[in-house]
Amino acid sequence: MLPFGERVRRAIASTGPLCVGIDPAASLLDAWGLSDDAAGLRAFGLGCVEAVSGVVPVVKPQVAFFERHGAAGMAAYEEVVAAAQAAGLLVIADAKRGDIGSTTEAYADAWFRGPFAADALTATPYVGLDALWPMADAARATGRGLVVVVSSSNPEGRTLQHAVTEDGRSVERSLLDEIARWNREELADEARRADTAPLGSAGAVVGAVRGGAPVEGLEDLGGIVLAPGLGAQGARVEDVARRFAGCPTGSVLPAVSRGVQADGERGMRNAARRLLDALAGALS
Amino acid sequence: MLPFGERVRRAIASTGPLCVGIDPAASLLDAWGLSDDAAGLRAFGLGCVEAVSGVVPVVKPQVAFFERHGAAGMAAYEEVVAAAQAAGLLVIADAKRGDIGSTTEAYADAWFRGPFAADALTATPYVGLDALWPMADAARATGRGLVVVVSSSNPEGRTLQHAVTEDGRSVERSLLDEIARWNREELADEARRADTAPLGSAGAVVGAVRGGAPVEGLEDLGGIVLAPGLGAQGARVEDVARRFAGCPTGSVLPAVSRGVQADGERGMRNAARRLLDALAGALS
Repeated sequence: MLPFGERVRRAIASTGPLCVGIDPAASLLDAWGLSDDAAGLRAFGLGCVEAVSGVVPVVKPQVAFFERHGAAGMAAYEEVVAAAQAAGLLVIADAKRGDIGSTTEAYADAWFRGPFAADALTATPYVGLDALWPMADAARATGRGLVVVVSSSNPEGRTLQHAVTEDGRSVERSLLDEIARWNREELADEARRADTAPLGSAGAVVGAVRGGAPVEGLEDLGGIVLAPGLGAQGARVEDVARRFAGCPTGSVLPAVSRGVQADGERGMRNAARRLLDALAGALS
Repeated sequence: MLPFGERVRRAIASTGPLCVGIDPAASLLDAWGLSDDAAGLRAFGLGCVEAVSGVVPVVKPQVAFFERHGAAGMAAYEEVVAAAQAAGLLVIADAKRGDIGSTTEAYADAWFRGPFAADALTATPYVGLDALWPMADAARATGRGLVVVVSSSNPEGRTLQHAVTEDGRSVERSLLDEIARWNREELADEARRADTAPLGSAGAVVGAVRGGAPVEGLEDLGGIVLAPGLGAQGARVEDVARRFAGCPTGSVLPAVSRGVQADGERGMRNAARRLLDALAGALS
């Protein structure tokens, strides 16, 4: 299997940059006429896959919504991931995992090698990015990606993410620099075509915020920038274009969830197409 | 149901302070003569419950190890939680969840109201503690607890956790102050016996570190301090006693995992008893 960075680069180059969330909240299940149980989760997820396959490059199941129905809900998650991959979509499991020591190794096994494995996993770095190394390593070894939360789109995140570390860099800047270092190490080992900007297996979650300023250090990340916040969370296409103006073309992957899910399966396909067109213009 | 803070206070007062981890790593399953699959996870978890029920107050399944076997592994987790509660143990689900907006609400549903619900859940605060409010609120509303990672026992965690926020406090200090505020609010609403130090539903994970210094702000937390790191991670009973010297009696809950699991079910019961005796003396 090709490395995740290369697979996502090709997928975005082929269809344009948009990640569609699969977030089966109770209110959306109701709007789609589905039951709020594991069968409803499965039907919602398969409906999302059907709606956006061939249109967008990547889907992102939000694992929290599947956990609402326990082990049965997670069985539905496994089915939705398999269906998405069979339909040619890349899948980022949005599970925000992270811990230390042998627990991180267990998460790496679970999310890169076990039944929950998708094409990439989101991770949370409160315990330090170095502690997540076993996950990044397993991602590389299995051709998958690790996308680390760096800058969340909620204002309450600023206190921690802008706190200043011992060497004077902000928390978010020091994480971005470290992720960039991981990607440089990985890409140094690979023969790449000289005419493309290669992407490593490690990425960053940086929220698309209405009126949000550009993020320092992002232009050299060398990996994908997953940018949730379009639509229901308030960011517009022009906010995405401004915030990520310095990033290489094809490395930014804006994500939308409720903004395209609210009108049911048929509405979703059309809404995704329109958003993708707008983004392709704004980000190129 | 009584609030989690009161339940854990009574449980610790009754048996002494020790939380035993249920961490079915592949190596431990092998040492116990069990298969590395969902059936092995179930047998390991039920064996741990059998070994420590009536001895310790709290067990802590590490969810990552159950996720290694996907939805089937999480079904084993559900069974282990039910068995532990039936045996009179309090259960802290060590899942380190945390996100923003509707996703946090989904985690709250999943881990306080759904099939995965135990007596408390660990959470990770990279997105800001305020973003976790729906989880703390759901914990209170359902008589359960939320235990937030504040200071991890790995040195790589220091960069972020000691970073300085805008008002001059460290990240970990500002989290401790905020958790203390949540607990004061909760406890102000309750009539409590005047002769005990009451505990709120919100707690903190603060690693027991070999040679670790006391943590400022911890003495006023008003909730449980979950302190992993005993045994395999290197901390000794005297490290725990020194690091948590300022905390009210009965509020510190040291946690051990591999340190008592390595000798199989029978060895575990005896190891837990010995450790509990040592801790009861050191922390009183």
